[in-house]
Amino acid sequence: MKLVRHGEAGRERPGLIDAAGVLRDLSGVIPDVTGATLAPATLERLAALDSQTLPAVDGSPRLGPCVGQVGKFLCIGLNYSDHAAETGASVPPEPVLFTKATSAIIGPNDTVRIPRGSTKTDWEVELGIVIGTAAKYVSEDEAPQHIAGYCLINDVSERAYQLERHGTWDKGKGCDTFGPVGPWLVTADEVGDPTALAMWLAVNGRRFQDGSTATMVYKPAFLVSYLSQFMTLHPGDLISTGTPPGVGMGQKPPVYLKAGDVMTLGIEKLGEQRQQVVAD
Amino acid sequence: MKLVRHGEAGRERPGLIDAAGVLRDLSGVIPDVTGATLAPATLERLAALDSQTLPAVDGSPRLGPCVGQVGKFLCIGLNYSDHAAETGASVPPEPVLFTKATSAIIGPNDTVRIPRGSTKTDWEVELGIVIGTAAKYVSEDEAPQHIAGYCLINDVSERAYQLERHGTWDKGKGCDTFGPVGPWLVTADEVGDPTALAMWLAVNGRRFQDGSTATMVYKPAFLVSYLSQFMTLHPGDLISTGTPPGVGMGQKPPVYLKAGDVMTLGIEKLGEQRQQVVAD
Repeated sequence: MKLVRHGEAGRERPGLIDAAGVLRDLSGVIPDVTGATLAPATLERLAALDSQTLPAVDGSPRLGPCVGQVGKFLCIGLNYSDHAAETGASVPPEPVLFTKATSAIIGPNDTVRIPRGSTKTDWEVELGIVIGTAAKYVSEDEAPQHIAGYCLINDVSERAYQLERHGTWDKGKGCDTFGPVGPWLVTADEVGDPTALAMWLAVNGRRFQDGSTATMVYKPAFLVSYLSQFMTLHPGDLISTGTPPGVGMGQKPPVYLKAGDVMTLGIEKLGEQRQQVVAD
Repeated sequence: MKLVRHGEAGRERPGLIDAAGVLRDLSGVIPDVTGATLAPATLERLAALDSQTLPAVDGSPRLGPCVGQVGKFLCIGLNYSDHAAETGASVPPEPVLFTKATSAIIGPNDTVRIPRGSTKTDWEVELGIVIGTAAKYVSEDEAPQHIAGYCLINDVSERAYQLERHGTWDKGKGCDTFGPVGPWLVTADEVGDPTALAMWLAVNGRRFQDGSTATMVYKPAFLVSYLSQFMTLHPGDLISTGTPPGVGMGQKPPVYLKAGDVMTLGIEKLGEQRQQVVAD
């Protein structure tokens, strides 16, 4: 099942994409797609609906982030060995955690704004995990039952803020618009194996990232178990799981985003995003 | 004005502490104390109430975190020169940012749980800033008008998770119960100068921290301006501004929390907290 949120920013309505690719409205069934509607019982109820009875949504409305009211936006760094190498780092002996501000979250095709004074705004195509039920001290075997589904995330990053401005990486990760999420929350059953998905990102049509979740070092079930040792993962929390090689910082010489650029990206089974880049 | 949230965890009701120290219920006036109720017009409306007409709350109900639905919990590290020195670090040339998970937030007198496997859980008394109106690219002069008020925060920290487990400090800062916030949100007008407040923290009655916000390096107005260059600060966001000397890690030898300990802490004008420490 592919869940979406459609409509004006801040006023999105729930929906799903049916087997024919038609956007159908779920407002009559659930109030929104949030942690409160991602429990297994609710997902089963939605899956049991005859989608043809749901109203089709006319036109091509804006899609919002595919999950609303995100409580935590946790991110894993250096989780692809080739990407670690291109940034001059090695894969750490346990996952690297950092945090994106939830206020950075935007829809999959919303505009990305380069912060004033930024010269090193960069891209990262990533597999996102959406938590469905609260997880604390769960084992790797138990972890999958806490995952509602997966989504596409662009972990937009300002490298100077991240690496040269003191403190944690968070300073360069949480800028407004730095978290396009969606288009779809694809339920775990429909994704199948999350560690065998092709992924790519292009800027102005030039493909910079071309990888697969197969080369992810710490896999989704491990990450959910690992993070749950430190804090409760709540329904609707997002975990972005790291990026494969090909970020702008890794080019020789480095390539960074400028106003007028267009990012396009996708992950197999999870859909595609397109962001126009503007100056803030 | 001292705003509070009283009642069972997750079901707190809004209130205020009147001039006589009586807790009075605000449920008939505002739905909760959150970003949505911290705009200047709302605070003015509350200040204009005759508090004696509000129902007094019987007994001594639990106090929750003094602001609900926090979107971002931003923290500044190494912001007191003496504390930087005790941890072996120097004061950085610009503020150090890290993030606490909002799921770590608890009431001021709730129980603090030591995570399983933790051996280095530590304390930090801090001045918290509560944002009242959205701030983006604001100057230091403009910053105060975006501050609704201040509160007391214990930035509980697991030093091994923070410093020895790879990645950012966030791993040791966001554990469940690591963010006691309150008892009161004291409005900025009542606090006056936030850079002249005595602050202290004791464990089992032994005073470890005994400082003043006067020795804070980067002051609240500067911090709000600074952070707003990176991301929009939204109403209800919290900024914890760093701790003075006397954390457990800085003792010789280091002293860390164990089950059965009791932390007490306070900041002049902002009230006091008391947390029992238990094993998780």
